[in-house]
Amino acid sequence: MITVETKQQFIHLVGSENYDDSKVGRLVYSYDATPQFQSMPDAVIAPRNTEEVAEIVKICNKNHIPIVPRGSGTNLCAGTCPTEGGLVLLFKHMNQILEIDEENLTVTVQPGVITLDMIHAVEEKGLFYPPDPSSMKISTIGGNINENSGGLRGLKYGVTRDYVIALEAVMPNGDIIRTGGKLAKDVAGYDLTRLFVGSEGTLCIITEATLKLVPMPETKKTILALYQDLEAAARSVSKIISNKIIPTTLEFLDQPTLQVVEDFVKIGLPTNVKAVLLIEQDGPQEVVDRDIQKIAQVCTSEQAVSVQVAESEEQADALRTARRSALSALARLKPTTILEDATVPRSEIAKMVTAINDIAEQYNVKICTFGHAGDGNLHPTCPTDSRDHDEIERVEQAFAAIFEKAIELGGTITGEHGVGEMKAPYLELKLGKEGIAAMKTLKQAFDPNNIMNPGKIFAKDERKRVVVTT
Amino acid sequence: MITVETKQQFIHLVGSENYDDSKVGRLVYSYDATPQFQSMPDAVIAPRNTEEVAEIVKICNKNHIPIVPRGSGTNLCAGTCPTEGGLVLLFKHMNQILEIDEENLTVTVQPGVITLDMIHAVEEKGLFYPPDPSSMKISTIGGNINENSGGLRGLKYGVTRDYVIALEAVMPNGDIIRTGGKLAKDVAGYDLTRLFVGSEGTLCIITEATLKLVPMPETKKTILALYQDLEAAARSVSKIISNKIIPTTLEFLDQPTLQVVEDFVKIGLPTNVKAVLLIEQDGPQEVVDRDIQKIAQVCTSEQAVSVQVAESEEQADALRTARRSALSALARLKPTTILEDATVPRSEIAKMVTAINDIAEQYNVKICTFGHAGDGNLHPTCPTDSRDHDEIERVEQAFAAIFEKAIELGGTITGEHGVGEMKAPYLELKLGKEGIAAMKTLKQAFDPNNIMNPGKIFAKDERKRVVVTT
Repeated sequence: MITVETKQQFIHLVGSENYDDSKVGRLVYSYDATPQFQSMPDAVIAPRNTEEVAEIVKICNKNHIPIVPRGSGTNLCAGTCPTEGGLVLLFKHMNQILEIDEENLTVTVQPGVITLDMIHAVEEKGLFYPPDPSSMKISTIGGNINENSGGLRGLKYGVTRDYVIALEAVMPNGDIIRTGGKLAKDVAGYDLTRLFVGSEGTLCIITEATLKLVPMPETKKTILALYQDLEAAARSVSKIISNKIIPTTLEFLDQPTLQVVEDFVKIGLPTNVKAVLLIEQDGPQEVVDRDIQKIAQVCTSEQAVSVQVAESEEQADALRTARRSALSALARLKPTTILEDATVPRSEIAKMVTAINDIAEQYNVKICTFGHAGDGNLHPTCPTDSRDHDEIERVEQAFAAIFEKAIELGGTITGEHGVGEMKAPYLELKLGKEGIAAMKTLKQAFDPNNIMNPGKIFAKDERKRVVVTT
Repeated sequence: MITVETKQQFIHLVGSENYDDSKVGRLVYSYDATPQFQSMPDAVIAPRNTEEVAEIVKICNKNHIPIVPRGSGTNLCAGTCPTEGGLVLLFKHMNQILEIDEENLTVTVQPGVITLDMIHAVEEKGLFYPPDPSSMKISTIGGNINENSGGLRGLKYGVTRDYVIALEAVMPNGDIIRTGGKLAKDVAGYDLTRLFVGSEGTLCIITEATLKLVPMPETKKTILALYQDLEAAARSVSKIISNKIIPTTLEFLDQPTLQVVEDFVKIGLPTNVKAVLLIEQDGPQEVVDRDIQKIAQVCTSEQAVSVQVAESEEQADALRTARRSALSALARLKPTTILEDATVPRSEIAKMVTAINDIAEQYNVKICTFGHAGDGNLHPTCPTDSRDHDEIERVEQAFAAIFEKAIELGGTITGEHGVGEMKAPYLELKLGKEGIAAMKTLKQAFDPNNIMNPGKIFAKDERKRVVVTT
């Protein structure tokens, strides 16, 4: 609850044009890209600078008002759903690229910058920011940092965490701190930079970030390998890597996903095969040529029925775009689309794909699987209907079984989407009671009043993730 | 203080052969590789497995006994000096390579494994563990993790933190937790893995680690570039990188260091130049050839007086070994050697090198400078004598001035050595009061009884680092 007096403090601080507690204004920010989760905030606020963020946090801390920092809300874990009400904090005024430093290979940004806009800006200088979450056309860098977003190039280049080298953050007590620097090495105290990356807005509010860049790869090539045997495709994944080739991208799509994507993008994808691997390598020309040739050999030796190198950058780009559109394509099938990101060591990909199909059959639900196979990061996706309570119950059981299997294979419940509200009930599967206790200790120490995105990461109860909250 | 009863509990747990509170036994572990710091522990203990570590921690937590986990004690920040007494915990029984996983490209080790032994073991499988601290012949992986060690290959490959993907750790309350996994991606809660890397034994005791490996580079080449102008050498460093070449190694040695190293290794290093850059590139043959050629062009265009490619792997190895021996060579000059690791953005290297020379002159002390120039990570080193109180006073002032300059240039007080006891009084320079407060909050939450390596990272008072403690 925000009192009239507190509301006046907020308006005095940011101006009435940047504070909205109208029903319509709040409704828009009552949910994010995650199906099935909705909760009304008390107000929406858009600070103009770090100092305003700090003042907002102080007021919230004093009055125990929850704050939910939000970029574009493209996360898939209900990470920006205002679960316990309070303020949704927008970065629409803090959306500048502050500097591209070509000597130190860094870019410094405010959290509200759109990921792809920043990628384009650095590419103009011949530099490269590798993390490329599928939502990058609309996602913000601030959101990427809060969720430690992955993407298609994670296999070779790592994830958002691997590129964040300095942060400015507002702590729950309103302190403004700076971590790291434009530094290749820095061990001055605890690594708060990496701790804050992926902390889902539950520890602090990030107000500025410096990201590491790398030189733009000289060239790239794309292969499409087709399989009539799911396991053969999965085996190819680990065989490529155990042959000591690390491709930029090593994506997997099963037949049901292929069909849906082709129906959506209509670029002539094969739909009569059981699985495809979309593989990309970048780097110097000679290396790319050699790796692509070796990759093709591995795929062929593992019974790929066809191995094709994209003939042009346009064709390659069409394939990449098709892959990126998998979620949008699947979302057309049914009113509700539940996309997961169970992740396993890559040696276990074949077992995991088989297990997902078995589980889908056992619970009589449709699950399409695609994902970053090179990272062991699969996206089993279920087109369903939240109004069909019987089916939803089975979907829930199926996903619980998938998470359990992932853990059994040495994996995790979330590879790149985060825990948020959605996966909180499953976190103990991965961490055990002691692991959760260690993380709670940390959260409580930083944020004793639990104002920072409350209701995320830590489950209040055993409630499962698929719930109808309307 | 350890009571007779508590001592009996320890002996009952680990056996009398693994518990030593004799004066001689304690004296050996009263100091580490850092000059000027010494403090007697109450006893030395060598557990045989994780469960014993957990039991030891529980006893210590109950009785408020400090624990100092120690590998080979090669750190340079007094990180393993038992500042407040208590137990020094050795890993001599926990020194096994548990698994090399060629499919997932990982190695799993106990903390007591010698770094170079592990590097050799994985290289036999055609795999590569890049972090290579100069002490790697004797340092342990556990020590490397606690200090987030760097090395010569950090520029291209990053530091220890970038390779640790899973940990088993004993928390201050005795809980055994597991973080991460053999996973390229994992966002299940806070990133405790990276938080614990570099936490200097102040948050937990690491009892097992899984490290990421990469394929062994195909080949490598080494260049030695000589300069009669310090700043030209420094300028070459940032020009190479802004030309979008990231060498594996980009080391700098000034004339005084060169002279001392040549006196020590006698391999015919040039001693009549002002500075050398030792540059290495690895990767596929064509890329290495091309990059080395481009690097040579940059060095020549920046007035290098000579640019030579090592003619054989033996010659290259001799150069690398010479560079690695810089500290040992410098240590022969005077009874006390103080080596620092002030680090700046690489664009500021020229300014920093000039400032170090000016400061040395101003305070009338000898400072030799070498280091990982590509990382902006310099090692200004002062051969001195702790018995000469007047000189030591000036040395202290000079290093304080160096740290201040590094911070002014956007740098840090420590790039790879850690804070420990030695650099604790300077940490606030980098972090500010608010940054220190955030880190203290974290420490107190995890370790309310302050048993985990107390006296490290956080300064008790304003006491400066150069103190005679004998």
